[in-house]
Amino acid sequence: MKLSIAIKKAFNDTLKLKNTITNDFELEGLAPVESANNKQLSYINQDKYVKDLNNSQAGAVLIKESLQEMIPNHIQPLVVDNPHLAFALLSQLFAKGDFISSDYSESYIHPSANIASNVSLGKNVKIGANTMIMQNVVIADNVCIGENCKIYPNVVIYRESEIGNRVLIHAGTVIGSDGFGYAQTALGEHVKIEHGGKTIIEDDVEIGANNVIDRAVFGETCVKKGSKVGHSCVIAHNSIVGENSLLVAQVGLAGSTTMGRNVVLGGQVGTGGHVHIGDFTQVAGRGAVSKNLPPKSKWGGHPIMELDEWMKFYVRLRRLLKQKDSKE
Amino acid sequence: MKLSIAIKKAFNDTLKLKNTITNDFELEGLAPVESANNKQLSYINQDKYVKDLNNSQAGAVLIKESLQEMIPNHIQPLVVDNPHLAFALLSQLFAKGDFISSDYSESYIHPSANIASNVSLGKNVKIGANTMIMQNVVIADNVCIGENCKIYPNVVIYRESEIGNRVLIHAGTVIGSDGFGYAQTALGEHVKIEHGGKTIIEDDVEIGANNVIDRAVFGETCVKKGSKVGHSCVIAHNSIVGENSLLVAQVGLAGSTTMGRNVVLGGQVGTGGHVHIGDFTQVAGRGAVSKNLPPKSKWGGHPIMELDEWMKFYVRLRRLLKQKDSKE
Amino acid sequence: MKLSIAIKKAFNDTLKLKNTITNDFELEGLAPVESANNKQLSYINQDKYVKDLNNSQAGAVLIKESLQEMIPNHIQPLVVDNPHLAFALLSQLFAKGDFISSDYSESYIHPSANIASNVSLGKNVKIGANTMIMQNVVIADNVCIGENCKIYPNVVIYRESEIGNRVLIHAGTVIGSDGFGYAQTALGEHVKIEHGGKTIIEDDVEIGANNVIDRAVFGETCVKKGSKVGHSCVIAHNSIVGENSLLVAQVGLAGSTTMGRNVVLGGQVGTGGHVHIGDFTQVAGRGAVSKNLPPKSKWGGHPIMELDEWMKFYVRLRRLLKQKDSKE
Repeated sequence: MKLSIAIKKAFNDTLKLKNTITNDFELEGLAPVESANNKQLSYINQDKYVKDLNNSQAGAVLIKESLQEMIPNHIQPLVVDNPHLAFALLSQLFAKGDFISSDYSESYIHPSANIASNVSLGKNVKIGANTMIMQNVVIADNVCIGENCKIYPNVVIYRESEIGNRVLIHAGTVIGSDGFGYAQTALGEHVKIEHGGKTIIEDDVEIGANNVIDRAVFGETCVKKGSKVGHSCVIAHNSIVGENSLLVAQVGLAGSTTMGRNVVLGGQVGTGGHVHIGDFTQVAGRGAVSKNLPPKSKWGGHPIMELDEWMKFYVRLRRLLKQKDSKE
Repeated sequence: MKLSIAIKKAFNDTLKLKNTITNDFELEGLAPVESANNKQLSYINQDKYVKDLNNSQAGAVLIKESLQEMIPNHIQPLVVDNPHLAFALLSQLFAKGDFISSDYSESYIHPSANIASNVSLGKNVKIGANTMIMQNVVIADNVCIGENCKIYPNVVIYRESEIGNRVLIHAGTVIGSDGFGYAQTALGEHVKIEHGGKTIIEDDVEIGANNVIDRAVFGETCVKKGSKVGHSCVIAHNSIVGENSLLVAQVGLAGSTTMGRNVVLGGQVGTGGHVHIGDFTQVAGRGAVSKNLPPKSKWGGHPIMELDEWMKFYVRLRRLLKQKDSKE
Repeated sequence: MKLSIAIKKAFNDTLKLKNTITNDFELEGLAPVESANNKQLSYINQDKYVKDLNNSQAGAVLIKESLQEMIPNHIQPLVVDNPHLAFALLSQLFAKGDFISSDYSESYIHPSANIASNVSLGKNVKIGANTMIMQNVVIADNVCIGENCKIYPNVVIYRESEIGNRVLIHAGTVIGSDGFGYAQTALGEHVKIEHGGKTIIEDDVEIGANNVIDRAVFGETCVKKGSKVGHSCVIAHNSIVGENSLLVAQVGLAGSTTMGRNVVLGGQVGTGGHVHIGDFTQVAGRGAVSKNLPPKSKWGGHPIMELDEWMKFYVRLRRLLKQKDSKE
């Protein structure tokens, strides 16, 4: 679809393009500034990122009027009042298909794989040797599952997810669902950002029951080799669970949480978005990770403190109040 | 069923009626004091609500002995030691059927709807144009789903739920389940309160994966137009999620939580029962909403504080302890 | 399998046996020190438990070198650097089968039970009178379900689980899944501990939607008679939910949490492992149970305090800071 037609179709009555398109190329999709090619469109939401355009191969970029002058010549600027909203509207033109697939002729199931009779498989699904897919599992188009995996009943795997070897996924878990991403209109309505990325579960990972692991906006959400995820966790879009890390039950990772290897997050831990947790760092149950945590450290509480401080903090406050009592 | 027979059947050996029935009408169900008609029965659990009976059309009311004198003449009093328990016992007589339905002849599926082959539909189900119902979805009796919806695999929708247009419900979510409501016997046993209400999901709502949204005791639980609910949230009976509100992942709303429009609740937020959150108010992740919050305000923490105070509160406490350290 | 062969097969290149096997018996499985018979193998992970071996009938025991001298003569010592890891490796030899069962000839379904057509049943399953099993429920081998139960759609029940009479289990709940248990290698990899125990749900229990209740390592995880569990709770291996207890939504019980009768845990409560909560004790929503709680007491907060103290604690801290303000 030509860029100009895509813009017209996507913006409709919600948004207006404020400049003229001079390079009306065939638009093939959306991508981040750093990886977009000249058939793809990106957006700049914060002023400080505008300098990244100098190294970008993007064909076009959505920007605020104030930044228009700073766009390199090889990129078509698309000036709008709300680049984030414009991006959300355009993402819907490139939304991919869903689960119902009448055709799984292109799928490849290894002869030694054991597939229960009422499993649903999409198009172009690959399932490796000795893998067991149990009852009522639903696997969408273009999913790839390795060897010696066990996918327990009622697991749902959304399109394009990649599952490694020796992976266990317990009942009711959802892999590759859409992330929680919306742009807001002037009226306070929420416009869905279609998630074009995917979810990767590497080798030797075990994922408990009733978890939700979202696909990425672009690129990937990844649970790395050897990690173990408990039950009822939520891992949001673009998060990276580091190699051999442990997430105990009911942990929630906000979008773009990343971590090094052998991290341990106790039960009910939550993270804010865009934080990084260093190698071998541990967060005690219920800790609220609101900032980057260095490697080999221990943390707890909300607000989060180093575990040593946290262990004494409330003890000392209680003592303080008791001293006041005895004075009064 | 005659009122006298219903009472006898429901109370059995657990409870005793302490007065005589003089108006033995044909009982058709239970309802709240304010909406009950003269074939229905209500109950008064707290003394202060007894005055509401003056404007009630209820046929009968369960009350404690001490309130008996205050019942208007047109209502048959039913005097018991524990009206809440009596109500729970009676609710079981009017419990409705469940999922297994051999008959879906009365259902109407729009010809353009796309229903996967292994979907289960109950009786009198309506599904609108272009709606896609994916694999293993189970829809009970009397459910109505609008146009252009996508119901992802393994979603379960309990009886009488109403889903609007352009609604997305992701994998594993449960809509219309029974609320957590029990009355206690003198022995500490819990008697289930059968939930006669329903769940309404309005237009343009997106609901993530593995959520649970309960039906109401009476009336309805409602997620209003344009709201977006993340993953693994629990929305208890009789809650109202306001128009264009956002509930990020793992949020828990206790029973009868209500809110205005464009409310934002961060990840792992919880609410106490019967609280109201005003329009445009935001609660930071992990906030514990234990009281009504005014419109256009920001909150965080547990106990909850205005966000400004919360941001400084722990900083100041840590400074206080450090000052003490340096003095000692 | 001979003990020597089991050790060789399990340890492979990961671990070395440091002594010689003199009693090479036919190994039949793993068991705790207190219940193992002379065909079974146990392990001692903490020095203080070594004295328990004097009353043990175990055939062999995994121990650290420093404890070797203290092993009674009737037990074959197995000296390793990491008994916990050795135990995990051996547990995998005795892992049992999973859901896909082509044979349910040995199952017994009472003629009055109502089983939806697309339910999956394993081998040797028993289902009692008037029990209703709804759509897409998956029940693995050797599961026993009593009379008058309702198992809602998309519930998954892992092998050997025992469900009593009049039990309700709502949609999407997973019963009997593997607990979160791993031993660590020297390289920081996690070795799965296969869970040989089971899950028991006693009479008159109601379990909400999307819960996860794990099987035990050995013995059983148990939800006792008359208890009610809300939605999206996680009950870890070897936990005991006491008779007539209430767990409101999103509660997380860590491994081996036990409790007396009529305990109430509010929404989002979490417990640390190996804690006991006394009869009739209540924990307010979001409370973090990090220690044993006596009977008939009330608690709240994180860190947990008696509810009376908790209610005043933050009020007093805020007052303290205000006093400081007015002084400055």
